[in-house]
Amino acid sequence: MPERALIEAIAAELQSAASAHGRVVRGIGDDAAVVRARPLSVTSVDAMIDGVHFRLRDGWVSAADVGRRALAGALSDLAAMGVHAGEAYLVLGLPDGFATQDALELVRGASALAAASGTVIAGGDVVAAPALTVSVTAVGWAESEQEIVAREGAQPADAVGVTGRLGGAAAALAVLEGRAAEPQTGRAALLMRVRAPVPRLREGAALATAGVHAMIDTSDGLATDAAHVGRASGVRLEIELAQLPLEDGVAEVAAQLELEPWRLAAGPGDDYELCFTVAPAQRERVEAALAAAGGEGVTWIGEVAAGAPGASMRAPDGSEPELAGFEHSW
Amino acid sequence: MPERALIEAIAAELQSAASAHGRVVRGIGDDAAVVRARPLSVTSVDAMIDGVHFRLRDGWVSAADVGRRALAGALSDLAAMGVHAGEAYLVLGLPDGFATQDALELVRGASALAAASGTVIAGGDVVAAPALTVSVTAVGWAESEQEIVAREGAQPADAVGVTGRLGGAAAALAVLEGRAAEPQTGRAALLMRVRAPVPRLREGAALATAGVHAMIDTSDGLATDAAHVGRASGVRLEIELAQLPLEDGVAEVAAQLELEPWRLAAGPGDDYELCFTVAPAQRERVEAALAAAGGEGVTWIGEVAAGAPGASMRAPDGSEPELAGFEHSW
Repeated sequence: MPERALIEAIAAELQSAASAHGRVVRGIGDDAAVVRARPLSVTSVDAMIDGVHFRLRDGWVSAADVGRRALAGALSDLAAMGVHAGEAYLVLGLPDGFATQDALELVRGASALAAASGTVIAGGDVVAAPALTVSVTAVGWAESEQEIVAREGAQPADAVGVTGRLGGAAAALAVLEGRAAEPQTGRAALLMRVRAPVPRLREGAALATAGVHAMIDTSDGLATDAAHVGRASGVRLEIELAQLPLEDGVAEVAAQLELEPWRLAAGPGDDYELCFTVAPAQRERVEAALAAAGGEGVTWIGEVAAGAPGASMRAPDGSEPELAGFEHSW
Repeated sequence: MPERALIEAIAAELQSAASAHGRVVRGIGDDAAVVRARPLSVTSVDAMIDGVHFRLRDGWVSAADVGRRALAGALSDLAAMGVHAGEAYLVLGLPDGFATQDALELVRGASALAAASGTVIAGGDVVAAPALTVSVTAVGWAESEQEIVAREGAQPADAVGVTGRLGGAAAALAVLEGRAAEPQTGRAALLMRVRAPVPRLREGAALATAGVHAMIDTSDGLATDAAHVGRASGVRLEIELAQLPLEDGVAEVAAQLELEPWRLAAGPGDDYELCFTVAPAQRERVEAALAAAGGEGVTWIGEVAAGAPGASMRAPDGSEPELAGFEHSW
């Protein structure tokens, strides 16, 4: 299918959702999209590439999953700032021979998550690329700086909390790569962690309203991300690995891999939960806010100390294992 | 260099420029960037990939040129909407073995164009990729819809104008690919069309203020882009190919290729000039506005008729040659 026809087919997929939102003044079809702003824009960019961030050919994910996953990654960054999602812009890099039906499925996957999260896909581009590449720009909005939670506000004595459950993406990857058999329990939820991760937008906004001091998403792995918060805030997050909330099936996969389950929960990333710190007196308020947001609640996993900026991950035996997630190097 | 160190080195390159702009509340270093908005955001996304949009290995461009070019492409879309540039966000996809020094040069190239055009690079991401990939999101701002020029406002009897000069990018490409010898005149300006294209932001804003009806940039080639305006507006742009303003050296390269020079000026794209339509009575106002904006002025290349939506490109012999630019197909 020629480029222009493909862009028109994609635009047709997205048009009705965009035109239903009064805030999009001009959507797909001009040189740029025009959107009604609020006082502060909050913008995140993210890219996912076949063979690097997922493996389409091995059947780990479908084209629709790729669209969902790429959008989820960018929206998760907005969740970590505590803001609601506004618009998203998609750049698709498609290799020669890529089926246009798959390109449309990818867009439908992203579009379904957009609809579920109140995001409007307001623009994009399609280019030729050596491997399937999805670049997403996600934009959220806030009325004032007070609504926004950064990485840098953690204070000594804060409690450290995390939403939902961890380790699911790493365990699912082990299953998809054939390193572990499917677990007896929780198989479906586990695979959804890779195929259709859910950005915690409602939870992030609820946590911001509840007054958390600092927040980050766990996309790079809890150990890495907690250290980001500690360094940005000039404090040390002390986390008890035994307290990490495990996704169903993670313990079973970890046993097959002969790993302690917290290694899957704290090391590798892609879980898209939120890790935050809050004054200890506000813990009940946070619990009530997350309950009202309808998520899986909060687990308290540690506290903030005035030590060397970063994070300590304490194992049940008192050791502090190295748990940094994978880091690419050039 | 590990990912985090590279991101920190890139952030250091960009930090001072970003912090000098009061409108960036939070720049690089958090999950998302926070920027003070104006009432309407105008957003364009664009991607350029080694081997598709440029050839780094063949020495056509330097790493700095790639950064400049990618940013120029996205900013040119904002110019075509008639708005000033605000922020840009860069996603770099770097292949294994890509020199970190080249990655920093790429960022410096983009940063130099950002400084020259009043754009702040406020965020980004770095990922592994099979080929050098630069995805750019450019955001401009407007106070009201009246400031913005779309593709769809062209009216019968309008004059069609174009800024600057055309054909330079196509001629430069022929030289870089070895299909033509370097021209005697205009060699430097010609190569700059590929290496350091200049988005016409001042001209676009001046044209919007002067009341042009419709506008587009010529990135896909004048013939293709004029047809976009015609279709969006439900009118026909009738363009006289003999009237196209030629970049120095284009006629000489065209002669070597045994092509009429207007084929290089109207067919292939990447010239990043602006094509617009305006009521004929406003032509002098447009000329004065462009003179005040300090650019190369305007050339009147045709007029708008009420025919079949699209564009006609009329050759000096009265024929209407097929001049569509390259279109990828999947």
